[in-house]
Amino acid sequence: MSAVFRTARRVEFGDTDMAGIVHFARFFAFMEAAECEFLRSLGLSVVMDWEGERVSFPRVSASCDYLRPARFEDVLTIAVSVRKVGEKSVSYGFEFFKNDEPDVIARGQLTAVCCRVGADRAIESRRIPDSIRARLGEVR
Amino acid sequence: MSAVFRTARRVEFGDTDMAGIVHFARFFAFMEAAECEFLRSLGLSVVMDWEGERVSFPRVSASCDYLRPARFEDVLTIAVSVRKVGEKSVSYGFEFFKNDEPDVIARGQLTAVCCRVGADRAIESRRIPDSIRARLGEVR
Amino acid sequence: MSAVFRTARRVEFGDTDMAGIVHFARFFAFMEAAECEFLRSLGLSVVMDWEGERVSFPRVSASCDYLRPARFEDVLTIAVSVRKVGEKSVSYGFEFFKNDEPDVIARGQLTAVCCRVGADRAIESRRIPDSIRARLGEVR
Amino acid sequence: MSAVFRTARRVEFGDTDMAGIVHFARFFAFMEAAECEFLRSLGLSVVMDWEGERVSFPRVSASCDYLRPARFEDVLTIAVSVRKVGEKSVSYGFEFFKNDEPDVIARGQLTAVCCRVGADRAIESRRIPDSIRARLGEVR
Repeated sequence: MSAVFRTARRVEFGDTDMAGIVHFARFFAFMEAAECEFLRSLGLSVVMDWEGERVSFPRVSASCDYLRPARFEDVLTIAVSVRKVGEKSVSYGFEFFKNDEPDVIARGQLTAVCCRVGADRAIESRRIPDSIRARLGEVR
Repeated sequence: MSAVFRTARRVEFGDTDMAGIVHFARFFAFMEAAECEFLRSLGLSVVMDWEGERVSFPRVSASCDYLRPARFEDVLTIAVSVRKVGEKSVSYGFEFFKNDEPDVIARGQLTAVCCRVGADRAIESRRIPDSIRARLGEVR
Repeated sequence: MSAVFRTARRVEFGDTDMAGIVHFARFFAFMEAAECEFLRSLGLSVVMDWEGERVSFPRVSASCDYLRPARFEDVLTIAVSVRKVGEKSVSYGFEFFKNDEPDVIARGQLTAVCCRVGADRAIESRRIPDSIRARLGEVR
Repeated sequence: MSAVFRTARRVEFGDTDMAGIVHFARFFAFMEAAECEFLRSLGLSVVMDWEGERVSFPRVSASCDYLRPARFEDVLTIAVSVRKVGEKSVSYGFEFFKNDEPDVIARGQLTAVCCRVGADRAIESRRIPDSIRARLGEVR
C-alpha cells in the first residue's frame, strides 16, 4: 500500500469504552473523517456540487482489523491510500498508528459508490466523472 | 413533574466510557429517543408531514444533571413529561431510573421549537399547530 | 447462514446523517448490541466473571456490506448467527432487515477474541473455556 | 465571560443528522474534547495520576443552548472559560463560533466534580487539590 495522505487526531474521552480503550466502532468514524480530509485536499468531498450536478459517495462496504488498542489522549496517525478506482466505486485503505510508534495498530478499508443525488435526496449510482477520476488517480 | 410516558432501554457496551460508566453525552441520545417514542405514541414525530406541510422540532436547549452512574447492561427507565407548551416551543422533562431502583439517577430537559421545513431543508420557526398542541396537551 | 437469534430495534434520529439515512458506522453499534443480546440470552456477556476469572471478548475484526439504506423510525431486525468458534476466537454473522421486508439491507461480521482480564484491565488472549464453548456451540 | 482558551475542529460527516445539521448531542462531545484540550494545556486531564493518587473529573451537569445550526465541513471555534472553581467542583463555559463568523452559534456549560478513584474504579468526591486549583485559577 503506497500511503499518500496522512492525518492525525487525538483520542477523545468519548471515544473510549469501559475496557479503557478506543471503542472499535469509532475507528469507522476516524476512517470516514480521514477519507473526507483526503478528498478535501483534492478539492473534493463525499457530497458536493460537481459540474452542475449533486454528487455523493455513500459507503457500500467497510471493514477494520484491530491489532493493538488505542487509549485516551493517544495521537493517532491515519494513512489513507486509494486502493482502487472502479467504474462507479472507489476503495480506500487505512492504516492507523499511534504516538509515532512504528507498528500498525489497525487496518481498514472503505468502499464508496459514486451517486447522483436527485430531488428528495434520492440517489442512484453513476459513473465516476472523469474529472474526479483524474484527481483520485493522481494519488494512486 | 407528572410523568406521563415511560420507556426503557438497556445500556449497551458502546454507551460506556473508560470510567466504566455510561458516557454523559449518551444521556442526550437517550432523551431524544424517549422524546421520539413519546411523540410516536401520540401519532407525532420530530419530523413529519402534517396538514400539508413539512414540520420539524429541532432542539434549542438541552440539559442534564447526573446524580448516579449507570453501567453496561443496566436497564434504564426514562419517564417523559411535557413541562410546557409555548406558542412555538415545547419543553420535555426526563427522569432516569435504573434496574427498578427507586432513586432518580439523572434528570434532563429538552426544548424543541416547531419549524416549517421548506425547500432545501431550510427551516423557520412557526406556531405549533392547534392539532399538535391538542395532542401534547392531553398528556400534560 | 443458519440464523438462530433475532432482535429488533428502531432507528433513532441520532442514528441518521445528512444523507437522510442511517450512518454506516452505526451498523457496527447495532451489531455489537445484537451480539451482546445474543450472549445474554445464553447467560454470557462480552465482559463477565466466569469460573473465578474476569473474561472479555474484544473485537479483532469487523466488517459490513451495505445493500439498502435504512431511515429514521424504520424497525430493523437483526439476525445473529455463530459463524465459527475457534480455539480462542468466535465469529458472528449479522443480517439486517427492515420493516418486515424480505430483502437483506446489510450483512456484517464481527470476530471477538477470548481474553483474560488482569489487574489494571490488562488483557491477554486465552482459550475459550469449554463451558462457554458449549453454550456457543448449542446455537451453531 | 472572559474566554481564555480557544480550540477549533471541523464538522465531520458523522456529526450530522438527517436535518442536514450537526446533531445537538454532538455539541456535548465537542465541549468535552475542548475541556480536555484546555486541561491538557495546563498539564492536567479529566483522569490522571496526581500527587500519588488517581484523580478524575466526572461531569455532574451539562447544558447547551443552540442559536444557529452548524453544517458538514464548517470549522467550529470553541472558546472555553472557567466559570467557577468551587470546593470540589469546577464549571466551564463554552461558546461556539463557525467559520470566523462573529455570531455565537451555541453556548454550553459543563460542571465536573473532583473525585478520588479507588480500587475497581470506585470514585468518591474530594476537595480539589490546591495545586490543581492554582492551575485552573490562573486562567480565570
